[in-house]
Amino acid sequence: MPELRRDPIIGRWVIIATERARRPSEFAHVPAAARSDGMCPFCPGHEDKTPREVYAVGRGPGQPANGPGWKVRVVPNRFPALKIEGELDRQAEGIYDRMNGIGAHEVVIETPDHTQTLESQGPAGITEVLLALKARIHDLRNDQRFRYIVVFKNHGASAGASLEHAHSQLIALPIVPRQVLAELEGARRHYDLKERCIYCDIVGQERKDRTRLVFENDSFVVMAPWAPRSPFETWIVPRRHESSFEDEPPERLGQCAQALGTTLRRLAAALGNPPYNFMVHSSPLRDPQSPSYHWHIELMPALTHVAGFEWGSGFHINPVPPEEAAEFLRKVNG
Amino acid sequence: MPELRRDPIIGRWVIIATERARRPSEFAHVPAAARSDGMCPFCPGHEDKTPREVYAVGRGPGQPANGPGWKVRVVPNRFPALKIEGELDRQAEGIYDRMNGIGAHEVVIETPDHTQTLESQGPAGITEVLLALKARIHDLRNDQRFRYIVVFKNHGASAGASLEHAHSQLIALPIVPRQVLAELEGARRHYDLKERCIYCDIVGQERKDRTRLVFENDSFVVMAPWAPRSPFETWIVPRRHESSFEDEPPERLGQCAQALGTTLRRLAAALGNPPYNFMVHSSPLRDPQSPSYHWHIELMPALTHVAGFEWGSGFHINPVPPEEAAEFLRKVNG
Repeated sequence: MPELRRDPIIGRWVIIATERARRPSEFAHVPAAARSDGMCPFCPGHEDKTPREVYAVGRGPGQPANGPGWKVRVVPNRFPALKIEGELDRQAEGIYDRMNGIGAHEVVIETPDHTQTLESQGPAGITEVLLALKARIHDLRNDQRFRYIVVFKNHGASAGASLEHAHSQLIALPIVPRQVLAELEGARRHYDLKERCIYCDIVGQERKDRTRLVFENDSFVVMAPWAPRSPFETWIVPRRHESSFEDEPPERLGQCAQALGTTLRRLAAALGNPPYNFMVHSSPLRDPQSPSYHWHIELMPALTHVAGFEWGSGFHINPVPPEEAAEFLRKVNG
Repeated sequence: MPELRRDPIIGRWVIIATERARRPSEFAHVPAAARSDGMCPFCPGHEDKTPREVYAVGRGPGQPANGPGWKVRVVPNRFPALKIEGELDRQAEGIYDRMNGIGAHEVVIETPDHTQTLESQGPAGITEVLLALKARIHDLRNDQRFRYIVVFKNHGASAGASLEHAHSQLIALPIVPRQVLAELEGARRHYDLKERCIYCDIVGQERKDRTRLVFENDSFVVMAPWAPRSPFETWIVPRRHESSFEDEPPERLGQCAQALGTTLRRLAAALGNPPYNFMVHSSPLRDPQSPSYHWHIELMPALTHVAGFEWGSGFHINPVPPEEAAEFLRKVNG
């Protein structure tokens, strides 16, 4: 059973995911990550190589579940960081805290085509992926043990992707992660002072300044943030205040898909298909609509290494000003 | 001039270090990091390839500064993330905060021998490096603009080292980094509740349990922490309460050097000379001795990639339980 452990000093939770373990001695050589040997478990025809699907879209009448014909397919992760069965069973061990690693870990297979990327499918395909994420969040949030769902994507081996076939992931957690708590608290502090959402203020200032704006459509702005942790960090922020990704109606998710696809195509064109990570930042499960918190996507190309300084201090050195990155992304075709 | 910018939501500061910049287009191909082409600026005889030294030890009488003969040499970083000259000049830009990137960025060249590692020199050589760090902190803390000095080491290109020759670094900052503030606050909260230092409690529990203990000497314990962020994360903690690294007397720094050297040799033997980062966690400059904060070193082999999940959530997945890592490191020779 995986375990959740809390750092006793700063309260950071860690998943000790023994079922994903390599033996200590195996770390002597970091294994190659991607595989493209024709045995991809995410390709149509290999549906039996994954756990049974929890969601699929695109099959015609008469095409059975767990067979081909899908456009987007969601399956439990075969090597989950957390297990869905069991109780949390919170325990002390001396001064330390632990609980069972209860949670859900699902994989969204974004396209049946092994050679496609998320963005190469165009807005309709990306919208199907966002609708799949929304549907899975709506299902998982019925489980009262879960407090937060981390929605993220790793693209490229050096950004942590272990399979090449385009996919994103959901991890449902029994706690709210520390970084999310810090955002909620920062946004609430601003609201207490000003009675305005800080993200709405940011959208307002960026649309006026335009130096960090990459582009916008009717519902979203794409921007380089004021204090980016790494070169070409890019945020996709809804123009209208909304605290939860999963409460957006389909038409606005379509606008989000258009913004996300354009962003990814421009980054690919500008930087030569870089590895990247993105995460959806949204309010905790079952929280009421919040006037202070505003959901958004944070996207980071994996261009620099996280070094000792960043690990130890939480302080980042970024050689590219966001104004330059945004100008570059405004001009590139994609 | 480099710039310090504050994220308006969570208060994370970032250095926009334009003088280290590559042009945006250069990110399309990440350049190879290490060089061993005989032109190493850290090797003896190449002293004119670095800025003029601020500290050196080992030269005999008649051997001039900025020439050969040194054992440990400290120079300003040739591509500093921060500049030493100027005023902070704190400014608003709409809702955002910035100040000039004032600080110091120095490099400690740990050995004249290009082929040696920090740990291969033995305890006497490592002690000289720690004494050099202490001397530089004592000098830099006289500058009232600086509030914190981050002392760290990147070993190996994938851990962020841009030169192969063994070196560590100091960055003096006009702010206390967020991660350090979180530790200070967590430790103070424990102290307020228990009137005990949480690190002293940890040392006590680990010396009793022994499952996460790697080894100890008269003054230090080396341990896998309860909630490690990555495989083989290892902490070196003084057994006696002390809040500042730079207040340790030379004899205890000798014990620290012995612990650090043994740890690095064991990690190298166990994992095949892995890339790694370490950082000295110490209390802010000029703070009085604190009963709640306890300095220590956190060391992380760079074996796994930081992926979207970790970036966005501050939540880590670690496939190796610390008890297994510690057992492995207890048994290996080094």
